Amino acid sequence: MINKEKEIKIDDININVYKSGIKKDKTDVLLVELPINSSIAGVFTKSKTHSPAVKYCKKNLNFNNKVKSILVNSGNANTFTGKKGENTVKQIIKFLSKYHKCEPNEIFTASTGVIGEFLDAKLIINSIKNKAIFAKNSWIEAAKAIMTTDTFYKISSSRCKIGNQNINLIGIAKGSGMIAPNMATMLAFIFTDANVSSKVLQRILLNQNEKTFNSITVDSDTSTSDTVLLISTNQKQKKTISSFKDPNLREFENKIYELMLSLAKQIVRDGEGATKFIQINVLNAKSAKTAKNVAMSIANSPLVKTAIAGEDANWGRIVMAIGKSLENIVVNKIKIYFGKLLVAKDGMKYSNYSEKRTSVYLKKNDIEITIDLSIGNKSWTVYTCDFTKKYIEINADYRS
Amino acid sequence: MINKEKEIKIDDININVYKSGIKKDKTDVLLVELPINSSIAGVFTKSKTHSPAVKYCKKNLNFNNKVKSILVNSGNANTFTGKKGENTVKQIIKFLSKYHKCEPNEIFTASTGVIGEFLDAKLIINSIKNKAIFAKNSWIEAAKAIMTTDTFYKISSSRCKIGNQNINLIGIAKGSGMIAPNMATMLAFIFTDANVSSKVLQRILLNQNEKTFNSITVDSDTSTSDTVLLISTNQKQKKTISSFKDPNLREFENKIYELMLSLAKQIVRDGEGATKFIQINVLNAKSAKTAKNVAMSIANSPLVKTAIAGEDANWGRIVMAIGKSLENIVVNKIKIYFGKLLVAKDGMKYSNYSEKRTSVYLKKNDIEITIDLSIGNKSWTVYTCDFTKKYIEINADYRS
Repeated sequence: MINKEKEIKIDDININVYKSGIKKDKTDVLLVELPINSSIAGVFTKSKTHSPAVKYCKKNLNFNNKVKSILVNSGNANTFTGKKGENTVKQIIKFLSKYHKCEPNEIFTASTGVIGEFLDAKLIINSIKNKAIFAKNSWIEAAKAIMTTDTFYKISSSRCKIGNQNINLIGIAKGSGMIAPNMATMLAFIFTDANVSSKVLQRILLNQNEKTFNSITVDSDTSTSDTVLLISTNQKQKKTISSFKDPNLREFENKIYELMLSLAKQIVRDGEGATKFIQINVLNAKSAKTAKNVAMSIANSPLVKTAIAGEDANWGRIVMAIGKSLENIVVNKIKIYFGKLLVAKDGMKYSNYSEKRTSVYLKKNDIEITIDLSIGNKSWTVYTCDFTKKYIEINADYRS
Repeated sequence: MINKEKEIKIDDININVYKSGIKKDKTDVLLVELPINSSIAGVFTKSKTHSPAVKYCKKNLNFNNKVKSILVNSGNANTFTGKKGENTVKQIIKFLSKYHKCEPNEIFTASTGVIGEFLDAKLIINSIKNKAIFAKNSWIEAAKAIMTTDTFYKISSSRCKIGNQNINLIGIAKGSGMIAPNMATMLAFIFTDANVSSKVLQRILLNQNEKTFNSITVDSDTSTSDTVLLISTNQKQKKTISSFKDPNLREFENKIYELMLSLAKQIVRDGEGATKFIQINVLNAKSAKTAKNVAMSIANSPLVKTAIAGEDANWGRIVMAIGKSLENIVVNKIKIYFGKLLVAKDGMKYSNYSEKRTSVYLKKNDIEITIDLSIGNKSWTVYTCDFTKKYIEINADYRS
């Protein structure tokens, strides 16, 4: 885990963390105040039962890509709460736009937690009104305030140059269960002081999201609240970068990718009940889409994930998962590796396959599975975790 | 479970069960010999890594819809075993066509068990050659010989009339894990003495398969060996029914549906580690396809299935699963019921919702969840089971 957050500071970002009472005796509200004219880009869940917070964020993004503040609460997803739930969001936005003296569409909110329970806006508004601040200007406390079943907070930071300016980047995320992003994922908020237009930020976010947050899965269940926001305070270079093709952006985009990947991997490492981190590479497919579908079919297979939890070299289940993807493959060309160990080729078990060596490999905490389809030149990598009794334990009793 | 197999007999079907040594000290080979000119219909897995047995069955069905014998082995799926695996099937077919003095395309085989291990044809051939029969003409022993992780054998039978002739129907099935049928499922073999052409049998099988075997799921993993065969010995009515529209067929088709549904439900009841049987009804959708997709999205959600295992009335996860189906729904029109208890309507929790009453309902062994989408008039029902620690236990250590 890259965890240099103490070294990184982004001027003029004001962080406040509250205990509003949504969660019992834990911080549950994060308010991030940004300098005026900060730019924002976002991607959201494709779920048809998405939360009103997601609905309003999408609307605000279409209307005005400027942001003054971001409010996040944990412990209650405010989803499937009807008109009442929409009013909760409206009340919070109305209050914050007065509080910050900005337009309502410069406020972005996100909610995460139990689905179907009413969220009282007053809990949040009163905490802010009464300045009942638990922590100030701490990225670690910010990351903690958005946790639900997460067992550790997720943070990543880095630096890069745009022209001769030093640019800072920091991101926080939450997520542990209900992780099977579709166009976006769980909650993640990434901040930079670069001076980059919203249009360019959005393009970078979409580009990098597919390979990072959209390439992880814990349990194949897609959250109703998935939100990733990328914010630039525009405090650094004097001139805003407003063309995606600007060569000064390449290092910046690459650093954004690395940061998103770091956060995405942290989410999988904290997958509910997980004991192993699993990277699945699909190589030499006819298209990137095929490669990703095959990789996701393996990553979402309960039978593959339980075999790995049991450190059982049952590679036949990988064959099953490749088959059920329904992608066009040539069975006799498939090669399957655990780490660097070849286990299958020519449509059957490898002649020098060693169950003993493979079993030793599977005792590791980090497992890499590679499928070489040998019918093209496109590849994809996805990240997941194993499937253990602990997952059942956590989820059979989530609310009690 | 309908379990009247003792009452039912189909003349001229000769059943032999063997212990060939594939499984340790358990019956593992079933040979069903049929009267000449028996008709056959079949549906198979859509998996791209299907077994050579599936491949040969499909080919034989295209070529000649007559059947002389069916050979099934359990304990080894003979899948992803390359040319060697294809030769195993060829050897078995060659031997049996001589043994029964019939054409090779009148022999049908199926294999179920571990994927990726070589299957020695000699084990099977020698057992048959040496007449090392463990049991004869017992449908119960036939059902037992095809079991893998199943904890009970699956059998169903019934009777009907075609014209003034009494017609017998009997079916056996196996399946417990790797159950997420796609156009067909696991292994099931259904026999009748009706005189019905293969073309008509195939139409009936396709019709009824969608609502039965294709409407169950245990773990969302699709088997490489799924095979359902429907066989008629044609011993009863003198005149073969060769038109699907023949009014004499309607009772027969309905009985076939009931029998397939009974076998499908038995498979779900025996879902690996299952403690609860769950029926999910989706009502009033715009299309049957939408209704089925929404139902399957709920039935395959690990978070829904673990909540039910924990008897936790966390209906918000059903909302999540409806959303991730990506089907067009109107959130404010959805009604959700546990049994007859309304838990959500108007896009939020029902005003008279009682957590206490819902929790009492969830203590039952058989749970019925109904989603009324209220935007059309098409419905679908699927069947699944809960997701428990026992599933993990069974599958983390399947081969050891």
